[in-house]
Amino acid sequence: MHSIGVDIGGTKIAAGVVDENGRIRARTRRDTPATDQDLIEGAVVDAVQELRADHEIAGVGIGAAGFVGADRRTIVFAANLAWRDAALADGIESRIDLPVVVENDANAAGWAEFRFGAAREAGDMLMLTVGTGLGGALVMDGRLVRGSGGFAGEVAHMNLVPNGQWCGCGRRGCLEQYTSGTALVRMARARAASSDALYAPLLSRAEGDIARIDGPTITDAAQEGDEGAIALLDELGYWLGYGAASLSAVLDPQMVVIGGGVGAAGDLLLDPARRGYAEELVARGHRSLAEFAIARTGNSAGMIGAADLARQAA
Amino acid sequence: MHSIGVDIGGTKIAAGVVDENGRIRARTRRDTPATDQDLIEGAVVDAVQELRADHEIAGVGIGAAGFVGADRRTIVFAANLAWRDAALADGIESRIDLPVVVENDANAAGWAEFRFGAAREAGDMLMLTVGTGLGGALVMDGRLVRGSGGFAGEVAHMNLVPNGQWCGCGRRGCLEQYTSGTALVRMARARAASSDALYAPLLSRAEGDIARIDGPTITDAAQEGDEGAIALLDELGYWLGYGAASLSAVLDPQMVVIGGGVGAAGDLLLDPARRGYAEELVARGHRSLAEFAIARTGNSAGMIGAADLARQAA
Amino acid sequence: MHSIGVDIGGTKIAAGVVDENGRIRARTRRDTPATDQDLIEGAVVDAVQELRADHEIAGVGIGAAGFVGADRRTIVFAANLAWRDAALADGIESRIDLPVVVENDANAAGWAEFRFGAAREAGDMLMLTVGTGLGGALVMDGRLVRGSGGFAGEVAHMNLVPNGQWCGCGRRGCLEQYTSGTALVRMARARAASSDALYAPLLSRAEGDIARIDGPTITDAAQEGDEGAIALLDELGYWLGYGAASLSAVLDPQMVVIGGGVGAAGDLLLDPARRGYAEELVARGHRSLAEFAIARTGNSAGMIGAADLARQAA
Amino acid sequence: MHSIGVDIGGTKIAAGVVDENGRIRARTRRDTPATDQDLIEGAVVDAVQELRADHEIAGVGIGAAGFVGADRRTIVFAANLAWRDAALADGIESRIDLPVVVENDANAAGWAEFRFGAAREAGDMLMLTVGTGLGGALVMDGRLVRGSGGFAGEVAHMNLVPNGQWCGCGRRGCLEQYTSGTALVRMARARAASSDALYAPLLSRAEGDIARIDGPTITDAAQEGDEGAIALLDELGYWLGYGAASLSAVLDPQMVVIGGGVGAAGDLLLDPARRGYAEELVARGHRSLAEFAIARTGNSAGMIGAADLARQAA
Repeated sequence: MHSIGVDIGGTKIAAGVVDENGRIRARTRRDTPATDQDLIEGAVVDAVQELRADHEIAGVGIGAAGFVGADRRTIVFAANLAWRDAALADGIESRIDLPVVVENDANAAGWAEFRFGAAREAGDMLMLTVGTGLGGALVMDGRLVRGSGGFAGEVAHMNLVPNGQWCGCGRRGCLEQYTSGTALVRMARARAASSDALYAPLLSRAEGDIARIDGPTITDAAQEGDEGAIALLDELGYWLGYGAASLSAVLDPQMVVIGGGVGAAGDLLLDPARRGYAEELVARGHRSLAEFAIARTGNSAGMIGAADLARQAA
Repeated sequence: MHSIGVDIGGTKIAAGVVDENGRIRARTRRDTPATDQDLIEGAVVDAVQELRADHEIAGVGIGAAGFVGADRRTIVFAANLAWRDAALADGIESRIDLPVVVENDANAAGWAEFRFGAAREAGDMLMLTVGTGLGGALVMDGRLVRGSGGFAGEVAHMNLVPNGQWCGCGRRGCLEQYTSGTALVRMARARAASSDALYAPLLSRAEGDIARIDGPTITDAAQEGDEGAIALLDELGYWLGYGAASLSAVLDPQMVVIGGGVGAAGDLLLDPARRGYAEELVARGHRSLAEFAIARTGNSAGMIGAADLARQAA
Repeated sequence: MHSIGVDIGGTKIAAGVVDENGRIRARTRRDTPATDQDLIEGAVVDAVQELRADHEIAGVGIGAAGFVGADRRTIVFAANLAWRDAALADGIESRIDLPVVVENDANAAGWAEFRFGAAREAGDMLMLTVGTGLGGALVMDGRLVRGSGGFAGEVAHMNLVPNGQWCGCGRRGCLEQYTSGTALVRMARARAASSDALYAPLLSRAEGDIARIDGPTITDAAQEGDEGAIALLDELGYWLGYGAASLSAVLDPQMVVIGGGVGAAGDLLLDPARRGYAEELVARGHRSLAEFAIARTGNSAGMIGAADLARQAA
Repeated sequence: MHSIGVDIGGTKIAAGVVDENGRIRARTRRDTPATDQDLIEGAVVDAVQELRADHEIAGVGIGAAGFVGADRRTIVFAANLAWRDAALADGIESRIDLPVVVENDANAAGWAEFRFGAAREAGDMLMLTVGTGLGGALVMDGRLVRGSGGFAGEVAHMNLVPNGQWCGCGRRGCLEQYTSGTALVRMARARAASSDALYAPLLSRAEGDIARIDGPTITDAAQEGDEGAIALLDELGYWLGYGAASLSAVLDPQMVVIGGGVGAAGDLLLDPARRGYAEELVARGHRSLAEFAIARTGNSAGMIGAADLARQAA
């Protein structure tokens, strides 16, 4: 049977009917009505009702940025929606007669990748989503790891460098400060500001204005062979691999899937990630190395994963 | 039904009959016959036969230091036994008609703690065993995390400090280099050598001979109020908490259990570990903090855990 | 004979007649006319002529932010004035018949402290000026250390933490990122954002608005006993001492003088600095420790030091 | 006039007559008589008397490992001779009627390099001597920097990596732990132990025995193109450059001279050192970069430098 996946983003709500093979059969979309919980629930219900008219649906899965409670019904804390302890599943179930499951959006996207994407044949998976920030998800023994309070998967805030770069979370040296799009741009701007000739072509692409160096400038330049841009992706990739090696000592996953906008750099990112992982992994001479791959499920991963989690729960 | 747990150590093999409540009903012991696999299997079989004479046994669980394959039958690599790809379960099953399960000793001990010890009421657990080295085990959703190749749980070799202290594993900055008995003694000796008055009493306890400062010197001194020794445990504990916080970002365990010889320092170690964890955990204002506790199952934890894993598999 | 010291700041030019004991006998001031070199030289000349009317003057010393050439006549690079290779001494000497010496403002202030302030009885001195950023000056064997190109004294950009906090200079982990007013405020805001109860009173002082936590909020709170603010100064002071210890291994200065606005915190900053220095200094059991003191020459240090350097050169 | 330089080593005492151009005109040698100060003074006097028979001598300069007092007459602390506060100059002057100057051996060697070697045309110089350990010397404005207590020049114990590799000095992360022959060998052995294929050829050169990998194995292999050995020198060189950049922010020297046994690797060491220096130096776009060169005065540098310092003092 089909299920509906809903992805609540900061500006729009995307919903879709997803079949048991992870294919999207129908889609709709609503604007996100500010941060008001009641209005957002209304928009979700409205989208679900529209989709439901033409499909038999087993349940609804909702992906949202933020910490989701262990019961998979409550948003404990969502920075961008300014929510705390929002009983989202209760609110929506009270308006439609379908079971609702809530999941963190990175977890939902990771689940889609595990079920239908690059890791569909693996038993374990570490997903690292390198967008503006760093997202993550972990599947062990075929199960999404949610942790005792539902807070698992926050790879962004692993401790990478003691006394390292300050993070918005209030601590220093978080992995995200070294392996996100924001980190990439900050690194590029700082290097461009330092009169290092390696980064002069990148600065030229931004017409000499350091503030105009952004993520696409860097990834485009790298794909056209710019050595400075390649060096930047190399460093970012190395830290990704380094972090993956650290986690692999404890979790030993079979696959590492890298997604997100920066992941679009492909081998320019994967190769240094593989190298950092191999160099920093304990006992590499005695074990199989994890396979590294770029994510395949694309922008709708959160919707597909949320739908699949709802189907399993139904 | 009862099962037998066997703990193969470097100098002796300890075996015991363990009931379903984790209690040891009978024990025996053999010397470890060098590193010869055939002789070791013989000694294990001999011990099992002795115990089996008086008890009905469902299976045999074997704990051993080293990397155990995902099939839980093979020692892939054991540094102290000089084994590679030793088909231990096959060898033993061919001599007795009981199912055999092999497990890494730290995993077995962690499982005992989860089932019968400090974490017996928890659903998730991170175990950190601070002995000469650092051991670890991870239980998520009630299941021992073994990883895709059986190599999970090696918290010792998480990356803590980039370019930090060299580790025997060939890499730098491994958690074990900051949170083990060896690290504690190295730190104490270095501080004593540096003419820092804080560590003068500790040096006096060792009769002025830096090389005589060992683990018990430090933990005894700390328990008697020696400020230098307390500072050393404080630093070690802080790093334990720091490492636990890093893992908790990804795994969100409900409990952190600290075992091993250094764990005997109790609150002198737990308090700084709790502090390091709280300071370095992301989103602490929005989540439950993990409970920290000292392990309870003692020296036979490996045997008890191995037996229980064998019972579950039988 | 007297000399004139001029301090060219971003918004105003302060000039004064200074006697051989470092006392200011007369003062005047002009607004800084944007970044135009000719206009700035005119304003300096105008101020000098005013002061000169009533005093016999041996020479003019000019302190300015930026890299000053080894000939002490040229501003090689000044970020805030947007100058490059500005032949300042030539320009001014062509308008008045007095010898002109140019010096970096932090060096000039350090020289004042060495000649007339906290280090007036010392033979060597490391000065660390903790204001918005971190300035520094070094006097060895009674002589201001200027380096082969005049660039010496930039303690701000010593490397403290590999892969640490990004610096405006384009590199990571510079000492300034850990030991400046900017660093102090960033640290305070991050801690306040992390829900750590220790920093809740500090957040209350800023009426709950993280962005309103500034330097004076922190130093005032610390002086009133606020534990969070004291902890922040403690960490900043520790890094100051750590950096001073690193330099002392190479330079072995007799005194470390701490100036700048954050230096006003006094012992709340000096005590942790002394501790960090003592803990991180090599061979401390065999050597005299440097004396740490707060700077005494105040806001006119740059003017006084520049004047004294001009007198010596005349 | 000529002067005599004496180099007191752990096993032998080398003495020579040195002319004003740094050329050795005559040599002699004695075994070092254990650590007894009186016997060592006797051996020095005996060697001096032999040399003096045929040359007119202005003074005697003595170089020795250890901390030399600011008066240049006393060994404050020498680890290898087990001396503390040894009044060496007094003892020798009482037996011969020549003025005696004592200097730390690395400082003496650095002075030789500044006066007669790679830096003979420079006004400032940072010397880094990469032997078993790391030595150093600093010349600013044509003068050897000795510091307020004579302890200057100990670049080995600058702080490089917070919480880094433990050092024999009782602290962590000293530069020497990353840039010495000992560090090079430790790094090579660890890498060889980690099953990294890059280091397999190096292990083969040591006939598979990790403990037989030593400094010459590595430098020889590098010079024959071994990629693992080149990577090791590359990393060591990078840290040398990184440390030199950190010091250059404060001291701005014109030249960096690299000596010692590992320095024999030449460009294999200099090139990465130059790169690390350039990448980590503040304001590189606005300043002259220091010139890097290999030391030229060889094994007798300490003797030559000590003799020259004695001539200048006489």
